[in-house]
Amino acid sequence: MGVVVSIDKGRSDAEASLSDLVALVADGMGRVNTTILSRTGSDVAMIPEVANHLIASGGKRLRPVLTLATAALCGYSGPDGDVKLAASVEFMHTATLLHDDVVDESDMRRGRVAARIKWGNEASVLVGDFLLGQAFRMMVEVGSLRALDILSAAATVIAEGEVMQLTAAKNTETSEDEYLAVIRGKTAELFAAACEVGPVLAERPRAEQAACRSYGMNLGIAFQLIDDVLDYGGTSAALGKNVGDDFREGKITLPIVLAFRRGSEEERAFWRRTLQAGEVADGDLETAHTILRRHRALEDTVERARHYGAMARDALALFPNGPMKAALLGAVDFCIARAH
Amino acid sequence: MGVVVSIDKGRSDAEASLSDLVALVADGMGRVNTTILSRTGSDVAMIPEVANHLIASGGKRLRPVLTLATAALCGYSGPDGDVKLAASVEFMHTATLLHDDVVDESDMRRGRVAARIKWGNEASVLVGDFLLGQAFRMMVEVGSLRALDILSAAATVIAEGEVMQLTAAKNTETSEDEYLAVIRGKTAELFAAACEVGPVLAERPRAEQAACRSYGMNLGIAFQLIDDVLDYGGTSAALGKNVGDDFREGKITLPIVLAFRRGSEEERAFWRRTLQAGEVADGDLETAHTILRRHRALEDTVERARHYGAMARDALALFPNGPMKAALLGAVDFCIARAH
Repeated sequence: MGVVVSIDKGRSDAEASLSDLVALVADGMGRVNTTILSRTGSDVAMIPEVANHLIASGGKRLRPVLTLATAALCGYSGPDGDVKLAASVEFMHTATLLHDDVVDESDMRRGRVAARIKWGNEASVLVGDFLLGQAFRMMVEVGSLRALDILSAAATVIAEGEVMQLTAAKNTETSEDEYLAVIRGKTAELFAAACEVGPVLAERPRAEQAACRSYGMNLGIAFQLIDDVLDYGGTSAALGKNVGDDFREGKITLPIVLAFRRGSEEERAFWRRTLQAGEVADGDLETAHTILRRHRALEDTVERARHYGAMARDALALFPNGPMKAALLGAVDFCIARAH
Repeated sequence: MGVVVSIDKGRSDAEASLSDLVALVADGMGRVNTTILSRTGSDVAMIPEVANHLIASGGKRLRPVLTLATAALCGYSGPDGDVKLAASVEFMHTATLLHDDVVDESDMRRGRVAARIKWGNEASVLVGDFLLGQAFRMMVEVGSLRALDILSAAATVIAEGEVMQLTAAKNTETSEDEYLAVIRGKTAELFAAACEVGPVLAERPRAEQAACRSYGMNLGIAFQLIDDVLDYGGTSAALGKNVGDDFREGKITLPIVLAFRRGSEEERAFWRRTLQAGEVADGDLETAHTILRRHRALEDTVERARHYGAMARDALALFPNGPMKAALLGAVDFCIARAH
């Protein structure tokens, strides 16, 4: 779920597609970053320490960017509702990452030692709770009950998606539909909510709210599918650095779902041994990669992502053309282009 | 923090002081329980399983009782705002308990196997997050921004209190003030918020909101102090059943703070070995009890609780006499009487 991508030849193209959007909301993001910094403050020193460990490690902050962008697309002109909701969205995301570390028993997060390793599971759980509380306080300050409704509903859907993933975890028989239900919850819902609150703030009609929500939801699905592909090194022939985390953790992602169904009995036995039983030996990651390539599982996952990307694009059709709309369409290209 | 108390001779007196309050809000609590049941529903089967494991195990539901009671005290006559906020408060409390299990690495909770043992840390973290999300959704439905503000602020203060406890954990030099800061956050804040939203719903003036908040805060402190005493078997001479959890977990509570300061060097070495270094041998709990009695640490903790109980009582002075006010005063007696 992290935003940090592996370095491969597609990266610079991908960055270029996002740069317009980033430039258009740069002022607002400056204020979001200031807000994030001030709202992680606490007399209890461990809280800013843990929160900033994760927040300072960066990532593109795609979710708050989307809130600012959809608010601007819809002509929001209030003082700081967009900034506060964008910061809330980032806090919700950070809280999820902290709690995920405990759930996944991860050792690394965004290229740094996971907070749970440095400060313990307790700190990850509690600082996550603190950030969630702060997120809701900022939403309350904005005062839009509809935005509160959207974001609190998202909080429950995200948790449901993660529990669903627990239940599906290590089950190689997971179907594509089941997997989609998981990522709609755990990833796409927050993208959807982040985009939906933009037109809500601007008090635009339901149709525009639904359009922005749909854009975010489909973009989020595409984003997660490409993340899944990147975890196996992208669609380039060779395995790069920093790949294989999902494989080692036994995570069932769409490339696996496709390869398992398309595979021979021998290959299925391989997936069952490595992912389900967790018996991973040297060379298994390479074998996994070979099987995935044999069945075009990575390429076809990118194809699936393209489909959701196209839906995201079409969702914005009802908005008049302009630089912000163009930049949001560019963000779709960014999500997909990361795979190459 | 659980409401289940050990059985000793004071229990029936204590129960009697609470029974008026329980009777006065019985109808509302019936609706709270229905709401709780329906809002733990999810297509993801593990969620109601885990949530109901904890919720069904009971406890007195003192916090939602307080929300209903303060709303009634202040003449709230809306359709279901009190019921929804009361259920929200109980969800926040349950989420805290689930997350505490992970933090404390507890094996038992409310006399049952902890959810984290049965379903894993992951489930405790995520179902806690789900319940927090549902709590906020219900608050949003009620539509009072002021109540949302109070309860979301409480969520951050609770997390801060728990982090503070992490930092203070196992430090036998913790001062009484530091300990009070911890329990104000981790326990009393939710009591305070539960009571404050009553007059807020009824749209009563700030003075009444502050009075109810103060009642809840001081009642919560008294409640936690008596819990601390009960964990060493209450003030009766002998050690009863189900005691010593705090001791075994190395928790620094007020009886320890008092005994440590009043003790000899030898006794301090004992506390450092057992609580700080975690080296607990057979017979140490009995020794702890003997030292606590020697310094009247349990009795004096009850005295401190009486002080906060008196403050809770006085906070309600500005309300006219009546059965609900009398019942709320009875709840203070209940909290204190549990110790004997």
